[in-house]
Amino acid sequence: MDMFTGVGRIVSPLAKVGKNVRIGDRTIIYDNVEIGDNTTICNDCIIGEPLNSYYIGADKYENPRTIIGADSLIRSHTIIYAGNIIGDHFQTGHRVTVRENTMFGSHCSLGTLDDIQGHSEFGNYCRLHSNVHIGQHSKLGNFVFVYPYVVFTNDPTPPSETLIGPTVGDYTQIATGSLLLPGVKIGKHCVIGACSLVSKDVGDFMLVMGVPAKPVKDVREIVDRSSGESHYPWPYHFDRGMPWSEVGFEEWKKKAEK
Amino acid sequence: MDMFTGVGRIVSPLAKVGKNVRIGDRTIIYDNVEIGDNTTICNDCIIGEPLNSYYIGADKYENPRTIIGADSLIRSHTIIYAGNIIGDHFQTGHRVTVRENTMFGSHCSLGTLDDIQGHSEFGNYCRLHSNVHIGQHSKLGNFVFVYPYVVFTNDPTPPSETLIGPTVGDYTQIATGSLLLPGVKIGKHCVIGACSLVSKDVGDFMLVMGVPAKPVKDVREIVDRSSGESHYPWPYHFDRGMPWSEVGFEEWKKKAEK
Amino acid sequence: MDMFTGVGRIVSPLAKVGKNVRIGDRTIIYDNVEIGDNTTICNDCIIGEPLNSYYIGADKYENPRTIIGADSLIRSHTIIYAGNIIGDHFQTGHRVTVRENTMFGSHCSLGTLDDIQGHSEFGNYCRLHSNVHIGQHSKLGNFVFVYPYVVFTNDPTPPSETLIGPTVGDYTQIATGSLLLPGVKIGKHCVIGACSLVSKDVGDFMLVMGVPAKPVKDVREIVDRSSGESHYPWPYHFDRGMPWSEVGFEEWKKKAEK
Repeated sequence: MDMFTGVGRIVSPLAKVGKNVRIGDRTIIYDNVEIGDNTTICNDCIIGEPLNSYYIGADKYENPRTIIGADSLIRSHTIIYAGNIIGDHFQTGHRVTVRENTMFGSHCSLGTLDDIQGHSEFGNYCRLHSNVHIGQHSKLGNFVFVYPYVVFTNDPTPPSETLIGPTVGDYTQIATGSLLLPGVKIGKHCVIGACSLVSKDVGDFMLVMGVPAKPVKDVREIVDRSSGESHYPWPYHFDRGMPWSEVGFEEWKKKAEK
Repeated sequence: MDMFTGVGRIVSPLAKVGKNVRIGDRTIIYDNVEIGDNTTICNDCIIGEPLNSYYIGADKYENPRTIIGADSLIRSHTIIYAGNIIGDHFQTGHRVTVRENTMFGSHCSLGTLDDIQGHSEFGNYCRLHSNVHIGQHSKLGNFVFVYPYVVFTNDPTPPSETLIGPTVGDYTQIATGSLLLPGVKIGKHCVIGACSLVSKDVGDFMLVMGVPAKPVKDVREIVDRSSGESHYPWPYHFDRGMPWSEVGFEEWKKKAEK
Repeated sequence: MDMFTGVGRIVSPLAKVGKNVRIGDRTIIYDNVEIGDNTTICNDCIIGEPLNSYYIGADKYENPRTIIGADSLIRSHTIIYAGNIIGDHFQTGHRVTVRENTMFGSHCSLGTLDDIQGHSEFGNYCRLHSNVHIGQHSKLGNFVFVYPYVVFTNDPTPPSETLIGPTVGDYTQIATGSLLLPGVKIGKHCVIGACSLVSKDVGDFMLVMGVPAKPVKDVREIVDRSSGESHYPWPYHFDRGMPWSEVGFEEWKKKAEK
C-alpha cells in the first residue's frame, strides 16, 4: 500500500514544483511556493501558510515567496509559513511549525513538535530534536545541535517591543531543557548542560551548567565514560550525516577552510 | 488561491453559526456549538469535541453547549472540547487543545501547542504564548501574560483526587519555563522570572525567581536596559492590542474604575 | 450527529481489524497493523506509520507488524509508527507520537502531545500525562506515573552513538518538569519532585528533588496536607482505574504476588 493516494491534495497554480516531488494526501501548497527536486512532503502538511494579514482581511494580500530545497523530507502535519527560505536536504519530524522570515542553510533538520517563531537564521547542518522553541530574532551558526525542550527567548522585560534573540556559534551543543535568555551570545564548540538557564555570554569551548548557568570547564576536558578519552570537540568523534563522514573532521576542515 | 475550499467541512445541524463566519476544510463543528459573527475557523479544527463519556459509549449522550465568541480567529488543527464558554476576539495559534468547562473572557489568545486541561477560568485579555500547559482548576485574572513552557500544576501529592490549581492576579507576567505548584496564589502586577519554581504565594508587585522561587525586589524597581526607566507596571509601557492603546493606561484605568 | 462519517478512511487490505472496531474519518491504517476488538481510533490518526527507510526509498520495504490491543481508545491526530506492540486497554490523548519498537503492557495511557521516541519498554498501568518526552532505550516498570513536561534523556555526551536510557521502578511518580539524565536508575515507590534534574541513581521509596536532585526523605514520611496521614505508598490512597479499586491494594497485592 502506498503512502500517498492523492486525496485532497491541493497545489496552487502559482506554486512551482520540481521534478520527482511527492506530495501527500490533504497537503496544501499555497501561492508562490517553490519546491526543489526529489522532495517528499507527507500527508496533512501546509506549505506557504498565509501570514496573519491574510486572515485579518488584507485587501490585496499576496503570499510571500517560499522556498523549500531539493532532496527534503517533510513529515506529516507540518506547517511552514509563507516567506521562508529553506535549503536543500531539509528534514522535519511531525507537527513542526515554522513561521515566516526564517532562513535555513542546507542539511538542517527539525524534530517533532518544534516551534520556530520566525524571523530567525540557521546555518548549515543544524539539528533540532523534538519540542524545541526558537523565539524570533535568534541566530544559529553551522552544526548547532539543540536537544528537546530547549527554549530561545527574546524579550528582556516582558511584555515589550524590544525583542533581542540569542546567538549561538558553530558546533555548539545545547542540552535538553535549557533556556537561553534574550540576547545571550554563545561561542563556538560550547556545551550547555541539561536544564541550564543561560543568562550571560559564553566563550568558545566552554561547558556551562546550572540555574543560572556557570562555567564548569573547557569542553576538551570532558571525558567519555566508556572510552576514557575527551569527547569534544565532538566532530572528531561523531560523523553520522555530517559532511566529514568519509574523510574525517580534520581533512574536511582543511578543505573547508580553503 | 483562497484558503478554504469547503472540502470535508462538517457542521452539525444542531450548531448555530453567526453571520460572516468562515469555516476551513475538514473542520468539524459538533452539536450545540454556537459561533459568533465574523469568526474564522481555519482548516482541520474540531469545535465541540465530545467528552470522554461519548467515547466510552454513554447511552444518551448529549453534547454540552459550547460558545465561541464573535470576531475570533482559530488557527488550523485546533481542538476545542464541548462545554467551553469563550468570549469575543478570541485567537489561537495552531494545534491548540482546550478541554471542557473552561471560561475565557474577551480578547484572550492562546499560542501554538497550548494545552488547556479544562475546568479553569481566564479573565479578559489573557495572552498565552506557545506550549503553555494549564492544569485543571486554574484561575487567571485579566491581562495575565504567560510565556512558553510554563506549567500550572494542581496535585500536591500525586496521584490523588485532591486537585487545587494556582490563582494569578491581574497584569501578572509569568516568564518562560516557570512552573507553578498546586494552589499557589500570585498577586497583581507580579513578574515570575524565567525557569522559576513557584512554591509559595507571591504578593502584589513582586519579582520572584529561582528554584524554588524567592522574592527579589519590587517590580517597580526593574529598570529597562535601554531607556534606564522602570518598565513596570508594564501597562504604562506596552499597549499593543490593549484597550488603553489610544488613551494610555492612566486614562483608561480611570474610566475602567468608574 | 455521529463522530465518524467514514470519509477518507483508509484501511490497508493487509491490516487485521477486530470486531466492533470504530475508525475515524481520514484515519489511515497501514500494512500489517492488527487492531484488537472494541477499539476506537478517532479522526485523523495514522496507525502503522512507515519507518524512515520507506521514505528514503527502500527498494523492498515491508511494514513491520504493529499490534494495538483490544478495548483501546486512540484520540484524534495520533501517530503510531509501525513496529510497536501495544497491550489492551491502551488510551491516548490528542496528537500523540509513538515511534517504532516500543512495547506497552496493558492499561497504559499517554497524554496529549506525548512524544515517545521508540525502542522503549513500558510495563502495565503506566500513565503519562501531557507533553512527556521519552527518549530511546527507556524502561518503565508497572504503575509508573509521569507528569507533564518530563523528559527522559539518553545521550551522556551529545552528540554520540552511545544511547543509554533511564530505568524507572514500579509505582514511581515523576512530577512535572523533571528531567532524567541518561542511564539513571530510579527504584520502586519513589517520588521525583517537580523541576528536578535527576543525575544519580535513586533508591526505593526515596523522595528526591532539586537541580541536581538530592535525597530529601523517605516517601512514607510525606504527609497529606488535609488528612495529616502519610500519602505514600500511594496505592493505599488512590485507586481510580487501578486493578485494586474494588478490593484495596493490600488484598490485590497478596493475590498478585501468588
